[in-house]
Amino acid sequence: MALIVQKYGGTSVADAERIKNVARRIARTRDEGHQVVVVVSAMGDTTDKLIELAYQISERPDNRELDVLLSTGEVVSSTLLAMALKAMGYPAISLTGAQAGIRTDAAFSRARILKVEAKRVIKELEKGNIVIVAGFQGITEEMDITTLGRGGSDTTAVALAASLGAEVCQIYTDVEGVYSADPRLVPQAQRLAEIGYEEMLELASYGAQVLHPRAVELGELFHIPILVASSFTEKPGTLIHGGVAMEVRNKVRGIAHNRNVAKITVVGVPDRPGIAAAIFVPLAEAGISVDTIVQNASIQGITDLTFTVSKGDLARAMEVVEPIAKSIGARECVSDAKLGAVSIVGTGMQNTPGYAARMFGALSEKNINIQLITTSEIRITCIINEAEVEEAVRALHQAFQTEADTASG
Amino acid sequence: MALIVQKYGGTSVADAERIKNVARRIARTRDEGHQVVVVVSAMGDTTDKLIELAYQISERPDNRELDVLLSTGEVVSSTLLAMALKAMGYPAISLTGAQAGIRTDAAFSRARILKVEAKRVIKELEKGNIVIVAGFQGITEEMDITTLGRGGSDTTAVALAASLGAEVCQIYTDVEGVYSADPRLVPQAQRLAEIGYEEMLELASYGAQVLHPRAVELGELFHIPILVASSFTEKPGTLIHGGVAMEVRNKVRGIAHNRNVAKITVVGVPDRPGIAAAIFVPLAEAGISVDTIVQNASIQGITDLTFTVSKGDLARAMEVVEPIAKSIGARECVSDAKLGAVSIVGTGMQNTPGYAARMFGALSEKNINIQLITTSEIRITCIINEAEVEEAVRALHQAFQTEADTASG
Repeated sequence: MALIVQKYGGTSVADAERIKNVARRIARTRDEGHQVVVVVSAMGDTTDKLIELAYQISERPDNRELDVLLSTGEVVSSTLLAMALKAMGYPAISLTGAQAGIRTDAAFSRARILKVEAKRVIKELEKGNIVIVAGFQGITEEMDITTLGRGGSDTTAVALAASLGAEVCQIYTDVEGVYSADPRLVPQAQRLAEIGYEEMLELASYGAQVLHPRAVELGELFHIPILVASSFTEKPGTLIHGGVAMEVRNKVRGIAHNRNVAKITVVGVPDRPGIAAAIFVPLAEAGISVDTIVQNASIQGITDLTFTVSKGDLARAMEVVEPIAKSIGARECVSDAKLGAVSIVGTGMQNTPGYAARMFGALSEKNINIQLITTSEIRITCIINEAEVEEAVRALHQAFQTEADTASG
Repeated sequence: MALIVQKYGGTSVADAERIKNVARRIARTRDEGHQVVVVVSAMGDTTDKLIELAYQISERPDNRELDVLLSTGEVVSSTLLAMALKAMGYPAISLTGAQAGIRTDAAFSRARILKVEAKRVIKELEKGNIVIVAGFQGITEEMDITTLGRGGSDTTAVALAASLGAEVCQIYTDVEGVYSADPRLVPQAQRLAEIGYEEMLELASYGAQVLHPRAVELGELFHIPILVASSFTEKPGTLIHGGVAMEVRNKVRGIAHNRNVAKITVVGVPDRPGIAAAIFVPLAEAGISVDTIVQNASIQGITDLTFTVSKGDLARAMEVVEPIAKSIGARECVSDAKLGAVSIVGTGMQNTPGYAARMFGALSEKNINIQLITTSEIRITCIINEAEVEEAVRALHQAFQTEADTASG
């Protein structure tokens, strides 16, 4: 008997029939003799509809109120799932994030989990219940309801798994696992049977949307194996864990891409200490996340500073940066909103030369211009025109082709 | 400066525009210098839709889960109302029933309020906030979410008013107050400017749906004046309080009616001690509420026992009663599902003869047959055929006509 945490996404519980289907899957796990804790997202497009309602009321809905509003979506699906299990004769109980002890800071709309006080969850497990927890939400010390922002329910699931010492955290979604590239772009893309935390973190951070990087990080920190699989099929999925075999690690494991990239270049910046802080501290204070930063070599004490943000943040970022650019004596600010990113990821790159050259060569062969390059020890990312992302992903998959271990099923 | 509790019903907050309208009304009360606590129902038909969803999942949805599910309806409307006030520049905060300290017993779907721990509400009032509380819900000692059943949000409002020592509890709804009879049946019916708790309790218990008897009882117990008025007009409404003038009390104040009456007669019951308990204890245990009970004078040790239930409970009540009737040697059980009730209510009846005679006379003139009669000190109720309810209400209003004090506006 093991303790297993499962998470089901919004498309998996989009209507009554799908909720019953998920209940049957949970019941099967229970029949295998396991204790089961389930984290559930809001049904289908519930969250979007609630946001729409909020914007009918106010152009700038209050963050605290918006969090309470959105939290109801996951509460609804958790109760329905518990009802479905009880109707099948399985003991089950739903818990809100607050009841499940998901304690967060008070950063409404993007709260971080501080700790999980899982007393109630443990009590219900001991009573023999399948415990259904409303994902994406928590509660502050002041008993205010918060939501966790993007990747929230995945994060709830891994945090609960860590806190309860679960054997595995199973993330069930509408895709069959982690692929060597997005199968919608690359029909030859293959599902990975397993992948290491670090590689998954790079893939997730640079565009693979199957699992949020926050959840991957948390899994790595607490050594929780995470299975990503489909709730609609019986395919085995992808296991993310720390013990991936040496051989398997020594490859480019996946190609990630992201079409949501905008670039700002501050042209003609005097190259003196404090300039970077003068620009990036105000951006951080405005809540704008900066991804890639590149500073050219300075010529005669003048340099260009380029960074990327998501497209949705571009207008606000320009509002913040333009007056600063003027005040520090830069020549101008220019922006480009039509960019994308392609990345190759694999621990095999570490200490192995030649990957960058092969990547640039593959892109050049297709006449794809590289605007910016950033790397980590196990990742190389090129910023390119958005229109060329699809071709780039295909070219890179071809170039590094089936280094991925083939997945059965 | 006074502390005022306001409650807005589901039709008053049915969509974004109506929520904004309610926000403007609240803001006006605030502008008059008052502290305001608002209790809100779920938007329009939200509760019905959630119930429908639950029944798509299960034929008998679990009560605990159903309560958590339904509680989200009021949470949604409370957050939207707080957003609307903030968008207008008024400081406001929403609180769930749990956050507002509405502590209940664990009788899911029909929980009773045990106490109100209003610390958080008081703290938010002291901060200058308008406090919006999700009605109809509370939380048990075990931190399980409950709903209060019928009249729940009205009860939340009066309980909060009592706990906070509010000057008045204003119930805003889609009717303009309490009338001498249902104005849809009796166009001449008049709005009462004021009415005493006891009279209102009888009217509410015997069919006037404007306010739930639970809320009236609570108001009487804690001496909270309750104003019932429309959220759509500026009409003054009806004030329910304890200090109604002697003169005004000495009349038939209102005619109540109820079309939802079914009757069961256990025929040929041996008249011996313990028979009533044998029948009514199991009914109570099955959660079936029995209204009127009439036992005929016994002839040769044999009697008939008749009682009424709501139509929805009739089938279950027969299931409970038939085997008991058999076991105690009764001849048979017969039921009639097509009944209604008309009542006249007024403290004037107390110690004043002639009201019953006038009532029976008025009904007899219209050839309306009276099946059962029950009375309290300030009420006389006749059970009649459902099809004759409307005519009976008109006849009674005519007979006792404008004894009601005329209302201005």
